[in-house]
Amino acid sequence: MSDTSRRTFLRDGTTAMLTAGVLAACRGKAAEAVAAVTTTPPPPPLSPTAAADAMDAMCEKGVKAFPAKTEGKGNALFTPRVENGVKIFDITASKIQWEVTPGQKVEAFAYNGTVPGPQIRVRDGDRVRINLKNELDQSTAIHFHGLSVPNDQDGVPFITQPPVKPGQSFTYEFTVPHAGSHMYHAHHNATTQVMKGLLGAFIVEPKDASNEPKVDLDYVMILNDGLGGFTLNGKGFPATEPLLAKQGQTIRIRYMNEGMMIHPMHLHGMPMTVIAKDGWAQPAPWKCDTLNVAPGERWDALVHCTNPGTWAFHCHILPHAESEQGMYGMVTALIVKPV
Amino acid sequence: MSDTSRRTFLRDGTTAMLTAGVLAACRGKAAEAVAAVTTTPPPPPLSPTAAADAMDAMCEKGVKAFPAKTEGKGNALFTPRVENGVKIFDITASKIQWEVTPGQKVEAFAYNGTVPGPQIRVRDGDRVRINLKNELDQSTAIHFHGLSVPNDQDGVPFITQPPVKPGQSFTYEFTVPHAGSHMYHAHHNATTQVMKGLLGAFIVEPKDASNEPKVDLDYVMILNDGLGGFTLNGKGFPATEPLLAKQGQTIRIRYMNEGMMIHPMHLHGMPMTVIAKDGWAQPAPWKCDTLNVAPGERWDALVHCTNPGTWAFHCHILPHAESEQGMYGMVTALIVKPV
Amino acid sequence: MSDTSRRTFLRDGTTAMLTAGVLAACRGKAAEAVAAVTTTPPPPPLSPTAAADAMDAMCEKGVKAFPAKTEGKGNALFTPRVENGVKIFDITASKIQWEVTPGQKVEAFAYNGTVPGPQIRVRDGDRVRINLKNELDQSTAIHFHGLSVPNDQDGVPFITQPPVKPGQSFTYEFTVPHAGSHMYHAHHNATTQVMKGLLGAFIVEPKDASNEPKVDLDYVMILNDGLGGFTLNGKGFPATEPLLAKQGQTIRIRYMNEGMMIHPMHLHGMPMTVIAKDGWAQPAPWKCDTLNVAPGERWDALVHCTNPGTWAFHCHILPHAESEQGMYGMVTALIVKPV
Repeated sequence: MSDTSRRTFLRDGTTAMLTAGVLAACRGKAAEAVAAVTTTPPPPPLSPTAAADAMDAMCEKGVKAFPAKTEGKGNALFTPRVENGVKIFDITASKIQWEVTPGQKVEAFAYNGTVPGPQIRVRDGDRVRINLKNELDQSTAIHFHGLSVPNDQDGVPFITQPPVKPGQSFTYEFTVPHAGSHMYHAHHNATTQVMKGLLGAFIVEPKDASNEPKVDLDYVMILNDGLGGFTLNGKGFPATEPLLAKQGQTIRIRYMNEGMMIHPMHLHGMPMTVIAKDGWAQPAPWKCDTLNVAPGERWDALVHCTNPGTWAFHCHILPHAESEQGMYGMVTALIVKPV
Repeated sequence: MSDTSRRTFLRDGTTAMLTAGVLAACRGKAAEAVAAVTTTPPPPPLSPTAAADAMDAMCEKGVKAFPAKTEGKGNALFTPRVENGVKIFDITASKIQWEVTPGQKVEAFAYNGTVPGPQIRVRDGDRVRINLKNELDQSTAIHFHGLSVPNDQDGVPFITQPPVKPGQSFTYEFTVPHAGSHMYHAHHNATTQVMKGLLGAFIVEPKDASNEPKVDLDYVMILNDGLGGFTLNGKGFPATEPLLAKQGQTIRIRYMNEGMMIHPMHLHGMPMTVIAKDGWAQPAPWKCDTLNVAPGERWDALVHCTNPGTWAFHCHILPHAESEQGMYGMVTALIVKPV
Repeated sequence: MSDTSRRTFLRDGTTAMLTAGVLAACRGKAAEAVAAVTTTPPPPPLSPTAAADAMDAMCEKGVKAFPAKTEGKGNALFTPRVENGVKIFDITASKIQWEVTPGQKVEAFAYNGTVPGPQIRVRDGDRVRINLKNELDQSTAIHFHGLSVPNDQDGVPFITQPPVKPGQSFTYEFTVPHAGSHMYHAHHNATTQVMKGLLGAFIVEPKDASNEPKVDLDYVMILNDGLGGFTLNGKGFPATEPLLAKQGQTIRIRYMNEGMMIHPMHLHGMPMTVIAKDGWAQPAPWKCDTLNVAPGERWDALVHCTNPGTWAFHCHILPHAESEQGMYGMVTALIVKPV
């Protein structure tokens, strides 16, 4: 987050924080549990003003922390090795500890150590080879969700291949059959494996880019609701990453839902123009500000960043985004820097 | 409801009601709880016929009561004060008791004492001022959902403004930037505040109405699932309000989902033609009879009322609309009066 | 399933099955419950390799069993009697035992003894008569979901007709008003009655078929989540029925959601082209691989079967399709036979 945008965040915020009040707001269920086993009399209830201040302080603390640092960053561009014109991606699946929000580490299953795994980005017609090494203690396989690959490369154990046992490897190889925003993820014990993080973006650029929308920036936003709560690209607010743009730029957002629930993503400040579904161009673009993304779906949308400022950007199922302790989960911001 | 339509409702209904049977059907869980702490032997089970009659009687009772009177009516047109060409809306947020169905009062948070709050209806390009007074015991702020307002009018505490503390006021002012079916609602502790009723329609008519569909009636239907159950415009069946039309008329329905769940709204008798998403015209209208509305979304649809009669109109997630005790929650009717 | 496709399934599968391992994988919650009331020491944990093998064996067992035989088959074509040009469908609603997966029998409510009921397929403009006989122990009524019938044929007790009591009959008669993929189902105590199986497809072919897409095969896929779990046409995997096609053929799939949840249906191997919503043509076809079907909705899609092989086809809410014991519920396959 740039200093400018940080200032925007802080501009109007009250900075005083009532320590007692914050602690009070933290009590909740943990305190109830304690109350059940001790005989200490409960503290007197907060005055309404103090209670409001405590709630606000918690909320402010989260916003001020944004974008909070955590260990690990998913969705980094995956640079393949190239041999005889084949783009080779070496992927190891293993169990890791993943920091979802500051201090909140959960057991995850990861491709190459991050959630999401590294972003595969190739061109329609490329020859690709994916070498999967399974270092998990259960079998797995990779499905290339959305890509019309040959059947024996489809990654479904006992239907198209044997499961890749712990310690074993498996090689996928195919010619990329068409363009679009797609995904790669586990297709074995998938409720567990995908929810825990065996997922990544598989983006295919078209052979002929002349029909592509002209964009200045291209963002991927992978939604998940199984790994340590509600996440965008593997992180929960305030550890989510803001989308940055300069006023006048057009950005493309590729939404991908790898969770178990719908997530209607709401952008403040500017409408989105939806241009593709599951990697296929819509017959005519259409505008919205809240885009409902169901599990397995991908939607591509453009935002023409005309309106400067720091704009909240979140799932509009409100319990996926905010509690009495402030914003969390599927919340980020689009920061449009004025020119 | 007109006498004619009331007669339609009653035309075929059996009127006998077996009091004993109805009471039996009411038992359910409460009775089980009582059973657990008393030694009274349970009454003998109802005969199948009596059980069916009891269930039907409960169902009939609900339908006959429709549209049931309750205290309070939301979504009334909000008439602004006008000063120097600025349309001024004075809005007070406070805690109230809200009657969702006859006799079922719940604690609500309300704008100007109703759920939904009064309907703001202005024109694209209007200058508007919203004076928010916070009489709640927690902080709040108003977000103008769907409107591309300047960043400092966006209503997100600690990002675009400080929270409006209990007892304080805050003024929003902006030039309405575009047309469409939008909303205003709380954006602070929003899971609680919106679910409890801090929400309303913000409808913007276009500067040039020549491209607007010609309609005889314009209805707003705000879906919620947090305030005393499943509601349409703040009320649950049988206290929901029917939509009325004369045969041959065209009505516009502006769906707005302020809840936490999807609600696929199903109209009997006639298809709907969907013309706008989130206030933006769809590139081509399309027809359906079940329109899936996700949280935060707005969809505008037209119904050409060709088919006379009283038509059930409800969420098609059936447990949002009917139980063994009859219809409830997200159920209303479109009543098309024959000409 | 043909021998060829069976071979495809088996081609790469490992065939060894470790009996001890399978039993171990079966333990789960039931075993925990037993553990709580006995003093037998628990068996030593499996080695990681044995645990992985056990999980794989369960998964393989399910795939190998597909398509598993069960008693009863829903959605069979309903041949009407014809009298004086009226197509007459005699429908009896009764309580049955329905086998959802091999050995898993549940109490169901059924039209003519199957779930879904028999498939009504008529032509726009046909005169149809539906004689409903109620052999349930509760009242019922049939609603023709999606069809703009006259009000008194709409099937909503106390609004358009009296409930049809146990033992009674009721006759519906109307001229089919328009084409499309529609449904017939109970509209009384519907959360229970539809979830338990009082549902079927009501497909109307157009008077003029010249604008219809040319298809080789026409499949109906009715989604439900209330009767013995997650089902496609009344069966859970591995008892679901595969869709069969020859390479080069085009198939039409008519999705219908009779459940309480969304189901984003994901087809592997080839995209789908969506052509109709709720029986009404979309203004322009559009492509996807994951089609979100909400309760009450119908979507028609075409698949041009260019890619030979056995393709997984499932709801992408992963817990509706797979557990640690393998695939189950809303899973089937599209088998494209090479030419």
